[in-house]
Amino acid sequence: MTSPSATLAVDEAVQALREAGHDVLHLGFGEAGVPVAPGLTELLADAHLRNGYGPVAGSPQARAAAAGWFTRRGLSTEPGQILFAPGSKPLLFALLAAIGGDVVLPRPSWVSYAAQAALLGRRVVTVPVPAEAGGIPDPDLLEQALRGAVAEGARPGALVLTVADNPTGTIAPAEQVEAVCAIAERHGLAVVSDEIYAELSHRGTVTSPVRYLAERTVVTTGLSKSLALGGWRIGFARTPSGSWGRRLQRELTGVASEIWSSLAAPMQAVAAHALDDPPEVTAHIAAARRLHARIAAEVHTRLRTTGALCRPPGAGFYLYPDFGPNRAALRARGITTGTELATALLERHGIATLPGSAFGEAGTALTLRLATSLLYGTTPQQRHMALTSPEPQDLPWISSALTRLGTALGDLTTDRHARPQS
Amino acid sequence: MTSPSATLAVDEAVQALREAGHDVLHLGFGEAGVPVAPGLTELLADAHLRNGYGPVAGSPQARAAAAGWFTRRGLSTEPGQILFAPGSKPLLFALLAAIGGDVVLPRPSWVSYAAQAALLGRRVVTVPVPAEAGGIPDPDLLEQALRGAVAEGARPGALVLTVADNPTGTIAPAEQVEAVCAIAERHGLAVVSDEIYAELSHRGTVTSPVRYLAERTVVTTGLSKSLALGGWRIGFARTPSGSWGRRLQRELTGVASEIWSSLAAPMQAVAAHALDDPPEVTAHIAAARRLHARIAAEVHTRLRTTGALCRPPGAGFYLYPDFGPNRAALRARGITTGTELATALLERHGIATLPGSAFGEAGTALTLRLATSLLYGTTPQQRHMALTSPEPQDLPWISSALTRLGTALGDLTTDRHARPQS
Repeated sequence: MTSPSATLAVDEAVQALREAGHDVLHLGFGEAGVPVAPGLTELLADAHLRNGYGPVAGSPQARAAAAGWFTRRGLSTEPGQILFAPGSKPLLFALLAAIGGDVVLPRPSWVSYAAQAALLGRRVVTVPVPAEAGGIPDPDLLEQALRGAVAEGARPGALVLTVADNPTGTIAPAEQVEAVCAIAERHGLAVVSDEIYAELSHRGTVTSPVRYLAERTVVTTGLSKSLALGGWRIGFARTPSGSWGRRLQRELTGVASEIWSSLAAPMQAVAAHALDDPPEVTAHIAAARRLHARIAAEVHTRLRTTGALCRPPGAGFYLYPDFGPNRAALRARGITTGTELATALLERHGIATLPGSAFGEAGTALTLRLATSLLYGTTPQQRHMALTSPEPQDLPWISSALTRLGTALGDLTTDRHARPQS
Repeated sequence: MTSPSATLAVDEAVQALREAGHDVLHLGFGEAGVPVAPGLTELLADAHLRNGYGPVAGSPQARAAAAGWFTRRGLSTEPGQILFAPGSKPLLFALLAAIGGDVVLPRPSWVSYAAQAALLGRRVVTVPVPAEAGGIPDPDLLEQALRGAVAEGARPGALVLTVADNPTGTIAPAEQVEAVCAIAERHGLAVVSDEIYAELSHRGTVTSPVRYLAERTVVTTGLSKSLALGGWRIGFARTPSGSWGRRLQRELTGVASEIWSSLAAPMQAVAAHALDDPPEVTAHIAAARRLHARIAAEVHTRLRTTGALCRPPGAGFYLYPDFGPNRAALRARGITTGTELATALLERHGIATLPGSAFGEAGTALTLRLATSLLYGTTPQQRHMALTSPEPQDLPWISSALTRLGTALGDLTTDRHARPQS
């Protein structure tokens, strides 16, 4: 049985609660929560001229724009290395199919990697992330885990890294990316680098594994996060240059042609424009980056007040607190697992989050993923104001949401006395 | 190795030949070849308000519209039975994943069913279609094939039917659909009924397997063919009512959430509108249906002149001639397989088609699939004139293409003498 993706499921549950009149503070879903950049919707006006299927990998214009986009970011790329898809999710699935072999994942990691591997009948090997940052396995544990997995009959083929990371909202340091790539190379693994949050690094850039394992690293990304276009479903991949990369591009094109044909042509026109980095798009992403950094930092402060462990946010709009230090106080409230913690936050305080178990962690881990981007507002106007405000945390709807979150966390984690169950 | 889908590959090859200055008559690709219906592009103007992911299965509006669409066609349907996707191709893939088991296909059948089954590691059992029509297996041969497959260790789970059919352009008679459904029921198979061409029946309606196996038949369809919107990627499925259908809907939603998340929200708005059957959309489909019927009949006449066997076209814009009766004449020209025949047509006459082997037939079969819809014109203006002309076959570009096709077929198949190789 394939359950609905945990992230999409919590989003639907929250919408249903809201429609039933409940006031829910939604921290459960990774929607970027900002308006659409200027000039993009207008590109759909010519959609009636774009009703043909077009090439599987994308139009020449879109592929050239994506190649230029990577090249301007220091990664020299030809259009022939690009393939578009309706989101980066189908690309990740097709890459696991095309690369072959079992799948090695950081733990925690995004909910769909393991589910996709299961759909393809592949084994999953998970390796804890280091204390510094998520999205990559701890190098020492990776080496051990690979040997153990092979000894048990697994055939690891692909290592998926998330740079910058979901769920931890952090950026792996260059030296750890390098160490992990060296191990991947020794074991003959291909690296799939999910970089959909890379544009949203709060400060500076992200070190892609391509830097260390150029010929065996595929990058996936898209416009869902940087441009808040999740509902437009625009993803693309960059396969490596070299003979392995060319074979993979052919195989990936084959899989794409059998599963989804092509990205909708009007959306390719949007991509061709946005990936040229026009100034208004660049400015929009910069504003979103500032907003994400500011609100994630505010929530981080409130989390640390409770005594929870939480890596400082470095990219995107996620935080991944570990309430292990609050275990006694939580136990006094009948909470012993991450799921119970998420349930208590939702049922007692109307705050939606996801437990660490959705990201592959043990049920007993008292970890949660908080997506802070849905605090920006519930109307297009509120989101626009959040994007343009110099102090978004002071906007009344954001300020009151932050207070509500702080109160709820305090209520669940203070040691003073066991609270009555509401 | 997953080769690119044969249909998409020939389309890209033809585009490349044309860009190199060659004049190619394109009968290789199933693009509907008519303009976009009035009023649809305008629906994309509000796309900036639709940047959220939304529910996996589709918006309430789109699901309600699709349920009404089925209900008005005699198939009572609730919105909860509907799931949207970026095309019906990913739906078919997800259904094979969700239903489980090996896959039973008519032979010939659409290129991607078998490829999708292979990606999922499933066996494929193919069963020849009867002389009357394609899209369904011959009932007697189906019974035999199932017994044989099970004896060899296969576990048939899904039977895919194509009603109306691609590649044969025909509609299975009701009594054969009934006979096939009875066998499917006896063997515990689920039926996946690909009905994407059903709206384009030239005369009257199509008998869906739902009529005979209501609780175990899933219908897939979309707007790519009826509304010529292949490049907008809008597909949807109807799962059965009843407990099996509800379980399948949940499982399908789970698979969808892990592979593609949701159909692009702006495209859901298009679907919600078009599936309400507004008069201008209904009129547009009726005009396309007339055009497809007329041109397919014209090509059929020219095929029959050569002595080839060819079922009369009944739906959509495909013909599937069998040049078996011309085997001697073809052999005199060095042509002994369907692929050699398609190659000769392309290289000697600039006419693109697909050989029957792309649809699962033996290489020695001298069958071709001809898509007649790309004869309508190469510019939006030509296609509009084709759609609105009372006698489209007399439009100069269509008339000359028909003449060119007739001449090429005559040139390859006449018995009088072996032609010199050009």
